[in-house]
Formats: sequence, C-alpha cells, structure tokens
Amino acid sequence: MSESAANLAYGRPIVLEDGPFKGWTTWGGGADPYETLLGPFCYRVEADGSAISAFQPDQRHLNGAGALHGGCLMSFADFSLFSIAHTQLSEGVNSVTLTMNSEFIAAGDCDGWVIARGEVLRETRSVVFIRGLLTQRDKPLLSFSGTLKKITPR
Amino acid sequence: MSESAANLAYGRPIVLEDGPFKGWTTWGGGADPYETLLGPFCYRVEADGSAISAFQPDQRHLNGAGALHGGCLMSFADFSLFSIAHTQLSEGVNSVTLTMNSEFIAAGDCDGWVIARGEVLRETRSVVFIRGLLTQRDKPLLSFSGTLKKITPR
Amino acid sequence: MSESAANLAYGRPIVLEDGPFKGWTTWGGGADPYETLLGPFCYRVEADGSAISAFQPDQRHLNGAGALHGGCLMSFADFSLFSIAHTQLSEGVNSVTLTMNSEFIAAGDCDGWVIARGEVLRETRSVVFIRGLLTQRDKPLLSFSGTLKKITPR
Amino acid sequence: MSESAANLAYGRPIVLEDGPFKGWTTWGGGADPYETLLGPFCYRVEADGSAISAFQPDQRHLNGAGALHGGCLMSFADFSLFSIAHTQLSEGVNSVTLTMNSEFIAAGDCDGWVIARGEVLRETRSVVFIRGLLTQRDKPLLSFSGTLKKITPR
Repeated sequence: MSESAANLAYGRPIVLEDGPFKGWTTWGGGADPYETLLGPFCYRVEADGSAISAFQPDQRHLNGAGALHGGCLMSFADFSLFSIAHTQLSEGVNSVTLTMNSEFIAAGDCDGWVIARGEVLRETRSVVFIRGLLTQRDKPLLSFSGTLKKITPR
Repeated sequence: MSESAANLAYGRPIVLEDGPFKGWTTWGGGADPYETLLGPFCYRVEADGSAISAFQPDQRHLNGAGALHGGCLMSFADFSLFSIAHTQLSEGVNSVTLTMNSEFIAAGDCDGWVIARGEVLRETRSVVFIRGLLTQRDKPLLSFSGTLKKITPR
Repeated sequence: MSESAANLAYGRPIVLEDGPFKGWTTWGGGADPYETLLGPFCYRVEADGSAISAFQPDQRHLNGAGALHGGCLMSFADFSLFSIAHTQLSEGVNSVTLTMNSEFIAAGDCDGWVIARGEVLRETRSVVFIRGLLTQRDKPLLSFSGTLKKITPR
Repeated sequence: MSESAANLAYGRPIVLEDGPFKGWTTWGGGADPYETLLGPFCYRVEADGSAISAFQPDQRHLNGAGALHGGCLMSFADFSLFSIAHTQLSEGVNSVTLTMNSEFIAAGDCDGWVIARGEVLRETRSVVFIRGLLTQRDKPLLSFSGTLKKITPR
C-alpha cells in the first residue's frame, strides 16, 4: 500500500511552524517512517484550491552521479498523487496507489526545491485519476500519472 | 538520471562478505547516497545468467499503515531494472531510466526479503526494454516495466 | 469502456468452424463493430488453462512504412487483457480496462500471426492485474500491462 | 513502428478541402491503410503553435456496449503523440513511438468529436516527451503520455 494513502488514513498532518517550509503541511510525528527518512515532503493548498508539493533535495537524495535518484523522484511523485487529490480524499476516505507511470525527463540536483503540480482528471466512486509534473527551477524532471483506489476503512 | 544508471557509470560494485547477503553484490563505498540511505539493495547473478535482486525491508521502509512505502518499492524496482539488464550494460555502457511503469499489486511488510526478478525483452543500439516483478514470500507486490536509454560516456 | 470488457458483458463468444483459426474463439455476430473492423481477434484456452490470443495481420493493419500500426497492436493487446483474464471474468463479471501501459519493442509485419500470451498477476475483489507480451515469429513486438476494473452489471 | 511516425516519414499530409474537417490536416492518399480504415484522424495547428487533433466517432468505433473501443482511443492517442510533437518532428526527422501509457477515465460515444490536446514536455537529441488528454464534449476520456524516439532516415 502506498505511503501517502496510509498517511491519509493514519497519519497526522501537521503545519510546519518555521524553516523554509513554514506554513506548509507534512505528515507528522514520525507517523510515516519512510517519509521521515526521505523528507520532509510538504504540500500547500493554493488559493485556487489546487495543491503544490515540494521538498528540498540534499546529499541524501543523490545517486552516484550526483543527480537526484530516480527512486527519490518517484517517491515524491507518489506522495504528490495524494496531495493533488487531497480535496477528493479529505473526508475520511482512504486510498492506495493502484498504478503509477513515470517518464524521466531530465536529471535533478540539489539546487532548489523540487516542485510537484498536477490535477485530478476524474474521481469516480472507487478510483481517482491524477496526472502531474515534477519540476526544478521551472524545468520538468518527471512526468507522472496514476490511479488511486479508494478503500473502505476496516 | 536514475540511480542505478549512475552506479553503473560511477559506482563500485562490491561483493558483501558477511551477513544475510553474503556473496551478493551491492554498490559500495557510499558511492550512491540514496541507496546507502535505503539499502543495501543487492543482486546476484544466477547460474542461468539471470539476475535476482533482493533487500530486507525494515522499519525505515514502512508507511503510516505499517506497509512498505510505494516509493520504496519503486526505488527498488528502479535498481532492479539495472541488475536485470546487467549483462547488457556491463561493458562500460552507461544507461539511465527513461520510463518506468508500476502496478501496485499487494502490500508488503517486513517479514522476509523483497525479491525482484525480470527479463530483458530486447536491447537495441540505444534502448533496453525490461520488465520485472517484485515478490515477497512468493506473493507479487509490484509489477514494473521500463526502458533504459544508453548514454555515451562524456 | 474497453471493447473486450463490453464483449464479456454483451458479446457472443463463438467458436470459428473453419479457416486458419478453426477451433478458436472470437466475438461473434458483429456484436463488436470495432473488432469486426480490425479482426478477427481470436483466443484459445490452452491445456494449462492459460489463454493464447492471435490475429493475422494484413494490409488493413499497416502504417505508411509498411509496419503494423502501433494502435493496431495496442487494440489487440487490449483484447488480450481480457482473454488472459478470461477465467477470472467468466462468471458473468463485467470488466473495463482501467489502465494499460505499452512499450513498443519492435516493428511487426504481415508475415505470420501476432500472438499474445500473458498472465494474471492478481485478482482482487475489484481489480485484475495482468501483464502480457505480443510476439510475431517468436520476436517480441509489444510489452503491455494493465488493470481491469470489475463492474457490477446494471 | 508507430503509424504516425511512419506517416511523418512517408505519408503525405493533405489539407481537407470540405466536410466537417475542412482546413484540417490528415495523412493522405491511403498512405496509411490503418488510419484510412479508422479515420480520418485530423489535426490543426492553433494560433499559439499547439496542435489540436480530432476525429468523429461513428458506428465503426464502437464496442459491444455501444461505447468507443479502448483500442480506438489508444490508436487516436498514438496519432496525437505525433501531431502534438509536429513542430519538433517537422524537419524531416522520423520518429517512432517508444512507450505509451493510457488511463481510461470515462467511456466515449458517437456524440461529438473526440479531441486531443497535449504538450511536448521536452525534446532531447534522441527522444521527445509528450503527454495529452482525449476529451469529448469537454469530458476527459483518456489520459496518455509517451516517448517518441527519433530515428535516422536510412
């Protein structure tokens, strides 16, 4: 099951009170060990209701060539599927990532936030369709699309 | 650029000399900070020339629901694209992940290794086509397919 | 909604009684205009319970370069998702294609059947996970994977 | 090899002189048998330089449920990958579809054109990254993304 899905089910969204992401939301209290290891991955709801996600890459996220690890970008994209869909998923609905597609457009580095923006293309009774784009310094890094499956809380 | 690609270009494959993965190969010397953070991700070449990849999930890899993070599985799948293609990529050819598709089949946990097996479907002059499957206790967790683009060392 | 899904809901599977596909099953009676236009697309259940799908490419399926049209291969792959899953879908369960990924491995031609084989990786209460491979003269043409969503007959 | 790619290599783009698609471009002279069978698939370059693609679904494109065949939508999306990338591919550069991902968002019918819009996310020396969306009556039907590989004319 996908991390963000789990967070929406079990995590405690908290608003960061200082630092570069002051005012942004992340999953708190170590509720998500993997994200605590990689993150913080943060998101903020814009005035138009859309979500923007971001994280600050650092040495931890690099591969042997000094570029951002593909797995790191996909992990952040998975997180972003859920922040993009937050309005659909906010009413106690749990979801899991069912599918995710990735195209690696360009290499990223540690110079500036990696930003995720996207859109919910449709929400059905059981599935949410999402696509998004990771960028850094306005340059596309990763194009992703996916489906979230709503699950009934046990 | 994808991590494993970078490793094949810059990393130092080392054979682990003890522990549960004694005799398995990983990328050594912290050459890959992201993999050092998540791993060790290991692979071994079987008698038939195919590669098997494995890692032992632990608390670090969990999401808020106590399942393996989707991003963790995709990170390991990305690593596996390169171990699966190792024979095609072993002669000093560098590669990067161009695309990767993932279907999340079932949730994983910390009980037993996550194993990756797969096959090279074709290698062209510039692209390698690969598909694989992540399993745990013989249960499919993630189906993945991808393309690696060969790059000319600068 | 995907064609084959519809067929499983509304089509009439018929067994061809002569011609090169004698003994193979297709969707009959023009129940599926698109498949009637492109096909016949046929499948047969093997002794081991797996399904093999096939069609004979001809001039209709060619692109401007004299190769099989990518859309033709994806159309046949979509059909094959359902023949591969036939045992899961045979008890009056309707399904639609939710997602499908394609990697174009090699160009096809009109010399010999295009064959589809694959496997159901998992069936859940609501989703079937499938992957498959199109080949011609034992050469891989298209790697595909997808998810079928079960739907409740109205 | 993908149809549209072939057309860009071998086809003859012609501007339709009458009918509902008067002023739109298609591939002419039966240069592409598969598209002639399914089409006409047309595109037009907008004032902003972007391409819009369209076709009028009819009885030929239906599945057994009276919805547009998934393979038909994917065939049109494949065509659209190339119309979207036309500016990148117009200088005698041939291309083939390397990968294409599809999410089936909603069922289509014969009431109104199916429209494709999209964007080139990046063009490298050897690959073009594209994503797009098929809509009908402003309703999303299919989300697709793909990579085109440039090929050197033989």
